[in-house]
Amino acid sequence: MTSTTDIIQKIGSGSIRAIARALSKVENGSSDSTEILDKLFSRQQGFTIGITGPPGAGKSTLVDRMITRYRSSANSVGVIAVDPSSPFTGGALLGDRIRMQSHATDSKVFIRSMGSRGHLGGLSGATRDATCVLSAAGYNPVIIETVGVGQAEVEIADLADITLLVLVPGLGDDVQSMKAGIMEIGDIIVLNKADRNGIEQLESYVKASLEYLPAESRKPDVVRISAANGDGLQDLWDSIDKLMASKTEENRITRSAVRTLNEILQENGVLFSEKLLDLEYGGRENAEKLMLTRQISPYAVGRNLLERAERMFKHNGSK
Amino acid sequence: MTSTTDIIQKIGSGSIRAIARALSKVENGSSDSTEILDKLFSRQQGFTIGITGPPGAGKSTLVDRMITRYRSSANSVGVIAVDPSSPFTGGALLGDRIRMQSHATDSKVFIRSMGSRGHLGGLSGATRDATCVLSAAGYNPVIIETVGVGQAEVEIADLADITLLVLVPGLGDDVQSMKAGIMEIGDIIVLNKADRNGIEQLESYVKASLEYLPAESRKPDVVRISAANGDGLQDLWDSIDKLMASKTEENRITRSAVRTLNEILQENGVLFSEKLLDLEYGGRENAEKLMLTRQISPYAVGRNLLERAERMFKHNGSK
Repeated sequence: MTSTTDIIQKIGSGSIRAIARALSKVENGSSDSTEILDKLFSRQQGFTIGITGPPGAGKSTLVDRMITRYRSSANSVGVIAVDPSSPFTGGALLGDRIRMQSHATDSKVFIRSMGSRGHLGGLSGATRDATCVLSAAGYNPVIIETVGVGQAEVEIADLADITLLVLVPGLGDDVQSMKAGIMEIGDIIVLNKADRNGIEQLESYVKASLEYLPAESRKPDVVRISAANGDGLQDLWDSIDKLMASKTEENRITRSAVRTLNEILQENGVLFSEKLLDLEYGGRENAEKLMLTRQISPYAVGRNLLERAERMFKHNGSK
Repeated sequence: MTSTTDIIQKIGSGSIRAIARALSKVENGSSDSTEILDKLFSRQQGFTIGITGPPGAGKSTLVDRMITRYRSSANSVGVIAVDPSSPFTGGALLGDRIRMQSHATDSKVFIRSMGSRGHLGGLSGATRDATCVLSAAGYNPVIIETVGVGQAEVEIADLADITLLVLVPGLGDDVQSMKAGIMEIGDIIVLNKADRNGIEQLESYVKASLEYLPAESRKPDVVRISAANGDGLQDLWDSIDKLMASKTEENRITRSAVRTLNEILQENGVLFSEKLLDLEYGGRENAEKLMLTRQISPYAVGRNLLERAERMFKHNGSK
């Protein structure tokens, strides 16, 4: 009934149901998801903005402000809420928080909490593909919000064209120094709750940390805001706009296409390996049995598969 | 000159130089590293203990105590110090900290700071392979220490048979709740600096968090210690010994072999994908050119490679 062409067409005409359906398909890695994504990929036009930072940094409030800003210029806005550290909520809490605010009834705001049920590429792959769907459906920007500042969160926020790292005073030096490395990921470092005690120290600390960045790398803007009362937001919007203007569509597409390709190569690679294991050992169980009875090490299994692959490639390459 | 057989033999007779050489080879992913690891894999006998937790939690002091404990029963002890968040030090700081303490001149204590220069599996793969070398060389236990509680750190600490999560009072609720999910990784949760204010709250908090673990999962022990003055250490050793006794050699080998195999499959998979890309498009540059001129999407490239692989597998499988 609902063929891929049908879904693509309906997404083109703005059907919320078709968008939701496509999102479910790509999240679950269903068999037609590659075809859908292939057709949508080149339709992506808008920007993506990643927002990350520890819980309590006020990210949801900032996203809410950001939605208001883009809606006031008649853009429709997509939000993907991701919480990798929470297997229980699958990001639902984040999505709900935003939903409960002022945009619940606005049909031009699409909010999706992410899971990665069947996706070969995990939460990061699922988020990447969902971003493709929303961007192709005309949402601009698509905002990707993640909780936390671990590697998974950073990787996901970094899918976006521009990444904001949101920090607040009062989380203590330990937290912030713990992840001095993450400074490298923020295009813009947002110091939220600028009316709080400790904002001066936080800013000094952040600026000092940025000194450790390699000399050749771009120093991120550091912007003080109070998302709750609106202070400093215009500075933040200016900083975002300036950064967006510096990135040509060409650059953005190149980066996104190459990154997507690399991830897909990795996802496919696992399938290839499993298939080779079947060919070489007649199934994973047999290989595991050989390992567990110490007849072969996992390193030797790996080497044997590589050698088999090389023979196959030689044979097929020469045709 | 130094053939693989030679290195293996010298490792067997306890040559520190041969061990260091093998470690460099596996870290750099040099061409003979697979052969070395294959031969060493089944010689592993000892336990591995992973230790993770935020900076300032006193992990180095605890490792120091742990070395003293095992040395007093005449074991030799290996330590692998890993700091994924620090591209600058490559874990060197950690290693130095331990080295500067009381075991600097003890030849039965081998401390290695990790890098992952040429390793296909990154820092995690390099740590796994280095653990194999040290364990096969007779170090027992091998202690894997990582800084931080992000996904990378947790993944690495989780390579070990037993994982300790070290927490201290005073890092604030935000930090600790931020990563409530990590409670799932510690076999033993160590509350260090038990003489500090806030230890009661920390313990309540930890125990409350553990309530959220799935009913079927093993609840970790929670042990208060003061690594600095030695309080509670005997309780911790008892907890470790009890846990070790519960794991048969069979179980440990099974887990380690299967995990290693899965990682190697993933590492190989990337090589297969790249090779397929060469076959199908005559090199990565051509595929990228097609993508950037919008003649093809990365999703279609992935699909084409999968299809090509399927044809190859069909052909080779039927022989």
